[in-house]
Amino acid sequence: MGTKEALFTNVSIPVRSSGNKVTVVGVGQVGMACAFSILTQHVSSHVCLIDCVEDKLKGELLDLQHGSSFVKNAKVEASTDYAISAGSKVCIVTAGARQREGETRLDLVQRNTDIMKFIIPQLVKYSPDTILVIVSNPVDILTHVAWKLSGLPKHRVIGSGTNLDSSRFRFLLSQRLGVAPTSCHGYIIGEHGDSSVAVWSGVNIAGVRLRELNPKMGSANDAENWSQLHQQVIDSAYEVIKLKGYTSWAIGLSVSHIVGAIIRNTGNIQAVSVHVKGLHDIEQDVFLSLPAVLGEEGVTDVVNQILSVEEKGKLQSSAKLMAEVQDGLRF
Amino acid sequence: MGTKEALFTNVSIPVRSSGNKVTVVGVGQVGMACAFSILTQHVSSHVCLIDCVEDKLKGELLDLQHGSSFVKNAKVEASTDYAISAGSKVCIVTAGARQREGETRLDLVQRNTDIMKFIIPQLVKYSPDTILVIVSNPVDILTHVAWKLSGLPKHRVIGSGTNLDSSRFRFLLSQRLGVAPTSCHGYIIGEHGDSSVAVWSGVNIAGVRLRELNPKMGSANDAENWSQLHQQVIDSAYEVIKLKGYTSWAIGLSVSHIVGAIIRNTGNIQAVSVHVKGLHDIEQDVFLSLPAVLGEEGVTDVVNQILSVEEKGKLQSSAKLMAEVQDGLRF
Amino acid sequence: MGTKEALFTNVSIPVRSSGNKVTVVGVGQVGMACAFSILTQHVSSHVCLIDCVEDKLKGELLDLQHGSSFVKNAKVEASTDYAISAGSKVCIVTAGARQREGETRLDLVQRNTDIMKFIIPQLVKYSPDTILVIVSNPVDILTHVAWKLSGLPKHRVIGSGTNLDSSRFRFLLSQRLGVAPTSCHGYIIGEHGDSSVAVWSGVNIAGVRLRELNPKMGSANDAENWSQLHQQVIDSAYEVIKLKGYTSWAIGLSVSHIVGAIIRNTGNIQAVSVHVKGLHDIEQDVFLSLPAVLGEEGVTDVVNQILSVEEKGKLQSSAKLMAEVQDGLRF
Amino acid sequence: MGTKEALFTNVSIPVRSSGNKVTVVGVGQVGMACAFSILTQHVSSHVCLIDCVEDKLKGELLDLQHGSSFVKNAKVEASTDYAISAGSKVCIVTAGARQREGETRLDLVQRNTDIMKFIIPQLVKYSPDTILVIVSNPVDILTHVAWKLSGLPKHRVIGSGTNLDSSRFRFLLSQRLGVAPTSCHGYIIGEHGDSSVAVWSGVNIAGVRLRELNPKMGSANDAENWSQLHQQVIDSAYEVIKLKGYTSWAIGLSVSHIVGAIIRNTGNIQAVSVHVKGLHDIEQDVFLSLPAVLGEEGVTDVVNQILSVEEKGKLQSSAKLMAEVQDGLRF
Repeated sequence: MGTKEALFTNVSIPVRSSGNKVTVVGVGQVGMACAFSILTQHVSSHVCLIDCVEDKLKGELLDLQHGSSFVKNAKVEASTDYAISAGSKVCIVTAGARQREGETRLDLVQRNTDIMKFIIPQLVKYSPDTILVIVSNPVDILTHVAWKLSGLPKHRVIGSGTNLDSSRFRFLLSQRLGVAPTSCHGYIIGEHGDSSVAVWSGVNIAGVRLRELNPKMGSANDAENWSQLHQQVIDSAYEVIKLKGYTSWAIGLSVSHIVGAIIRNTGNIQAVSVHVKGLHDIEQDVFLSLPAVLGEEGVTDVVNQILSVEEKGKLQSSAKLMAEVQDGLRF
Repeated sequence: MGTKEALFTNVSIPVRSSGNKVTVVGVGQVGMACAFSILTQHVSSHVCLIDCVEDKLKGELLDLQHGSSFVKNAKVEASTDYAISAGSKVCIVTAGARQREGETRLDLVQRNTDIMKFIIPQLVKYSPDTILVIVSNPVDILTHVAWKLSGLPKHRVIGSGTNLDSSRFRFLLSQRLGVAPTSCHGYIIGEHGDSSVAVWSGVNIAGVRLRELNPKMGSANDAENWSQLHQQVIDSAYEVIKLKGYTSWAIGLSVSHIVGAIIRNTGNIQAVSVHVKGLHDIEQDVFLSLPAVLGEEGVTDVVNQILSVEEKGKLQSSAKLMAEVQDGLRF
Repeated sequence: MGTKEALFTNVSIPVRSSGNKVTVVGVGQVGMACAFSILTQHVSSHVCLIDCVEDKLKGELLDLQHGSSFVKNAKVEASTDYAISAGSKVCIVTAGARQREGETRLDLVQRNTDIMKFIIPQLVKYSPDTILVIVSNPVDILTHVAWKLSGLPKHRVIGSGTNLDSSRFRFLLSQRLGVAPTSCHGYIIGEHGDSSVAVWSGVNIAGVRLRELNPKMGSANDAENWSQLHQQVIDSAYEVIKLKGYTSWAIGLSVSHIVGAIIRNTGNIQAVSVHVKGLHDIEQDVFLSLPAVLGEEGVTDVVNQILSVEEKGKLQSSAKLMAEVQDGLRF
Repeated sequence: MGTKEALFTNVSIPVRSSGNKVTVVGVGQVGMACAFSILTQHVSSHVCLIDCVEDKLKGELLDLQHGSSFVKNAKVEASTDYAISAGSKVCIVTAGARQREGETRLDLVQRNTDIMKFIIPQLVKYSPDTILVIVSNPVDILTHVAWKLSGLPKHRVIGSGTNLDSSRFRFLLSQRLGVAPTSCHGYIIGEHGDSSVAVWSGVNIAGVRLRELNPKMGSANDAENWSQLHQQVIDSAYEVIKLKGYTSWAIGLSVSHIVGAIIRNTGNIQAVSVHVKGLHDIEQDVFLSLPAVLGEEGVTDVVNQILSVEEKGKLQSSAKLMAEVQDGLRF
């Protein structure tokens, strides 16, 4: 009799179904920051990694497993075979070519669409009731692509979108005002990219709209030049990529937060990329970020923000741009 | 159009199924300490309270709900109707008359058995695949009663047992040795009560068996009198009840830890009350605490500790005692 | 040589100064809910309990200590002697007679002032650089009393105030709107009691002011009757006390959150009772709750909310009332 | 008046002293995994990064700051100037050339010693009461070097040592036995490298020594070949480096755990590199890993494990090897 058999009396067969299983596709810097954030913040106790580069995948698997005693014994698995993702509550897609220094998110689009054509059907095959969280860029278009490829209802396909931009915006507000980021309320909506929209009318601290103190806030002729904060948000990805070669930590945390709201079914409102046709008079069949209520079913509601004519116009332009790009895609 | 309708565009119907739903039956001090530990330690995001005293139940519900923004927006529900517990992954039973000052846990038995006859069938009716965690005392007998009443396989019915006694033991070791409780390894097994057994042979710090340093440790003729730690563990409940009227915090945390291992499917080993017939030559159909591996299915394995003749004898005596009491029960 | 001496080679003398030490005065239901929230949410790893009822104090100490292995090995100490509180970063005062069913918070005032006269000088003696967080009721007046008795600068004396009322308000908003409490933004300010003020003008979801959707929100002639939410907040304490005999969980979590912002030096904005003379044209030397920025020094800033004439009037009335009561106090 | 001035009434000057400040020197993959683990696990709310590569440093700073709203508003700062580290409770040193594929940790030694000569005096200058946690490899020798350079008492200079090797060992045990890693007890001690020692005599599950079930466990003629687990631990770093280019997650979590025990003053026992002269008959003035008790003062005690003649001999050989390398170092 072996040691294990001598040590234990078996009572039942262990299962590994874990109601909170999360799959991460792509083990690059972004995918690993997502997985590590989810593990260290105890969002899931069962994380599954998928990638096509076997060596890298195994290296990341071992490195996470070696730390499992420090993350409440969470289980980590990995395979190049999507069968391992079976039964995932949430599947995060980070795979795809990543933005190079100076490249816009839109430049990546056909390359990454082709990658989605491979990934999405496999994920849905093994987890037909999953929620897809798309992180690969350009995220708004790829979320649309993933939705089409998946056959899932639109509320089950979410792009990480401007949740990160909003987090960057709040940090910049917090630095300028000297208070905690979570006490700075403001949303960046629309495209996760150069045409994003800062909803200055809603920016507030403890319910005090900053525009009541400075009516020109966010405009070109504001003596305090608050609009530079939005510009800094837009420049952030470019700057971080220029400085360290890629972005990872903040996007990882942002995605972990979205997934946490889904798994814990909290009803949190976060800016994520959702199907926006019919909202803010948008006519195109596209995804853009708006504040949305997140729960077990994915998106339950979208907040109808009161936008200025200018803000609405910008959103509609983004929508047009997305639709044009989508029209040119082969999938 | 109302404010809510104006504010949101509905996308999907919110569900409240939460894969991690936990029901707590009994909102006395123990039940509430369990519920509060589970909420503050983020073990579950969906807690359901059941009790027959409507006022108290509603008061506890409101008091928890008022704090939900501080526990990551966890949902709390309550009802006197067991239908509310439907779909619970784990049901914790704390209901029952509680130990009075000076009363032994065994004295409570018939009163609490009658209560189980009402509770258990209702829980299983609404959550046929649940794991039952019995906390009411005398816990070992009531776990047996709950198992019989439930019709569930034995690995799905667990008593909180000596997980708490082991925690008390480790704290006392930690105080005497000046190190962290989690770095003090030792188990109290058997009855959660006066006949519990301290497994001195396994007590170790960083793998150093204390018996190698002091071979008489735990025996009557040990000059250092370590056996008093076990006596203090046995006296703990009586002492705390005498001093503050009831025990709550430590049992709440202990149960939260058991439930966490189940919901997160970790494979943690904890001393809990399990069906012990056939183990350590026990012949009776009883439940007693032994170190067991916990996961989504409840108990997957029981550790075969190597016990001395004396320790085994004590366990067997406890088993006999349990069986005798059980024979006298009407259920 | 004893077991301990054989087991360890000593290298340095352990200290117990813990930069995050928190003292809780009063081990009633409120004090213990504070202590337990602080321990389970890992706000401090060193909690000290003080009370004059020795038995109860020892019972609570043991009950917490028995669970220390489940709260990351936090240390808990207790004594009737204030010397044990030496070096506390934050001292929480929950001692005092508690509100009886039907009693207003103001009725308690002289009884609890006398208790402060005993407690406050002792706390400041042993922790001259501490932050005092007053929870005892009527909290606004007792925070003023504590400030006077302490000799501390005003930013180091804080009342738990309407942080709890705001949390209750957000929960009620969340129930009505179907989103997470932390996504419902709104403040209850002023007196923690019957004359509190709901700042409806600032109530918002994702930056959308609900008054833009329903301009009468909060007023008497609002067809949707949102003002009942504020009434429910005011009634909450009375209702919970009537139903379960006291309030505990939500106040414990609320205080734990305040203490966390101080110890972690976050700059979080929370509604707490601060010295308001000079704010909102208040002329009296009183404490009332306003949104304030919290950090290691206690309060660093108070948010200048833009209040309506009516809201300001209510605040000023509360201030007058506080001042009148204070004038009648002997301390 | 600017928006900020209009928004707030200042009450006191915010400070940034944070009793739990942690500095990380070196923002390579290891340093960043340490910083990110510390932030996501809420070990510190004030992390300071130092590196000499300005671009990379700024990129990492921004990337962490952009996520601060997701880590309870923790503050992150960075500079190439050590003045920013002033007042750190713990300083983690990860700087240094890193192990290349196939390179042993000892090969790195002189290169990294020269780096220490620059770093250590600066850290101690600005935080004279800090605890140094050395992570750079070869860690045992560099911990000795750092100790000498720092002038600190030996208990304030700790190497991350075999805490990680022990974590890897427990994970491998857990995989083979089917239980949680934290329920698998065993220590790897000695050199963090090829000559590390697995203390098989202490390996236990719930106090059951596996050697009682399989007396040959860990030896060459064990039919079950458990010794391969130790070999896998030794090979781990090489394998992960080969597969993904570097190790990061597990070492980050391991260091975060060490720092947490120090900041929270818990008395946890972990295998870390300590001054071992006089222990296990070691005569050299070297650092090697042994299970040690960690608290605010760094190491308070070292556990006297009972080692076999063979295990002791291996430790002594490692000590000799360390001493020889140290003799050849210029510092």
